[in-house]
Amino acid sequence: MAVELLEERIRRDGVVKEGNVLKVDSFLNHQLDVALLDEMGAEWKRLFADRPITKVLTIEASGIGIAAIVARHFGVPVVFAKKAQSVNLDGEMYTTKIESFTHKRVFDVIVAKKFLGPEDHVLIIDDFLANGCALNGLIEIVEEAGATVEGIGIAVEKGFQGGGDALRERGYRLESLAIVESMDADSGEIVFRS
Amino acid sequence: MAVELLEERIRRDGVVKEGNVLKVDSFLNHQLDVALLDEMGAEWKRLFADRPITKVLTIEASGIGIAAIVARHFGVPVVFAKKAQSVNLDGEMYTTKIESFTHKRVFDVIVAKKFLGPEDHVLIIDDFLANGCALNGLIEIVEEAGATVEGIGIAVEKGFQGGGDALRERGYRLESLAIVESMDADSGEIVFRS
Repeated sequence: MAVELLEERIRRDGVVKEGNVLKVDSFLNHQLDVALLDEMGAEWKRLFADRPITKVLTIEASGIGIAAIVARHFGVPVVFAKKAQSVNLDGEMYTTKIESFTHKRVFDVIVAKKFLGPEDHVLIIDDFLANGCALNGLIEIVEEAGATVEGIGIAVEKGFQGGGDALRERGYRLESLAIVESMDADSGEIVFRS
Repeated sequence: MAVELLEERIRRDGVVKEGNVLKVDSFLNHQLDVALLDEMGAEWKRLFADRPITKVLTIEASGIGIAAIVARHFGVPVVFAKKAQSVNLDGEMYTTKIESFTHKRVFDVIVAKKFLGPEDHVLIIDDFLANGCALNGLIEIVEEAGATVEGIGIAVEKGFQGGGDALRERGYRLESLAIVESMDADSGEIVFRS
C-alpha cells in the first residue's frame, strides 16, 4: 500500500531536474505529508517485524521527520546524527565525514556516544539514497558504536546511481519503498524498478 | 499530563550548563523520546482544538521531529524552514534572517512560497524558546505569506530570557509546555513557572 502511494505521489508531484535531481519537496523533504509518512512507517514495521530494533538512526535535517513517524511504529527512540559541532553538544562523540550529493560539500557528522552502544539494534532511516555516502557514514557510526545494523529503510532510492545495490551486495537488508530506475529531465518521465 | 511528564523529564535528564544552556539532548533534540513527543502532540491538539490549523511550521533541524509528531494529531502537513540555500530548492522563497542562540551566528532562513499562502492557518512548533529570534523569524515568514499565526507551541521556554513574554504581549497565543523560571549551573536546580 505504502509503495503504491509513494510511487503514485512521486509520479504526480515529483519534479525531475537536470543533474539527476529529483525534487520531492512538496511531500518528503520541505513540506512533509505526515499521513503518507505514517503509511511508510507501517510498511517498514511490517518489513522489519522480525528484527529486534532498539533505535532508529537518521541524519539531519530531512531524515528527521520520517524517522520520528517511523519510530512511533516501533516504539523506540530516534537518534539523529548532526552535521557539525554545536555549543550544545559536548562529551564524547562518534564522528565521520559525509559528502552530500545535494549540497556538494563534505560535512562532519557526529552522534553522542551515550545514545548508541553495543546493546543497540539499529534501523537506519533516510529520505533519499543516491550514491550512498550518507548511509555509509551512518553505518560507520553504528559500527564504531559496536551496535548492529538490523536494516535500512529508504523512501526514495535512485537505483541508477548504484549506492543501494552496493549496500545489498555487502549484505545489508535495505528496503527502499520506491526505487527510481531511470528518469528524464526533458520529458519528466520516471521509471520505477518493479 | 504532558506538562508533568515533560517537567519531570527535564528535572531528571536535563543538564544545566554555564551560559544559560539547558541540555535536553537525551529526549528532545539529539535523541528523541517519541512517546513523550506524542503526549506533547496530544496536549497541543487539546490546547489549540478551537483553531482551524492547516499547517504546522517549524525550523530545521531540532524542531522537525516534534513538528512531525504534532502534525499527526492535527492531520495536517508540516513545513520546515531551511537554513541556507540548497541546490534542491528553487523557485520563489520567503526569506528572513535568524540569529541562533545555540550556534552564535546568523542564518538565512527560507520557505518555498508554494507551501504557505494567505489561506493557511499556521501552528508554529519548536523545541526551545529563549530570546525568541527563531520564532520571530518564523512569524515574519507567515506574515510575508499573508497567512495567519493561530498559535505557537514550544516544548521548553526559558522564561527568564523574556522572548516568550514579549510574544504574549504582542498578542500571540503561545503555549509552552514547560517554562523554566530559573536554573543554576552549579547546583543543577531548575525552577518551573507554575
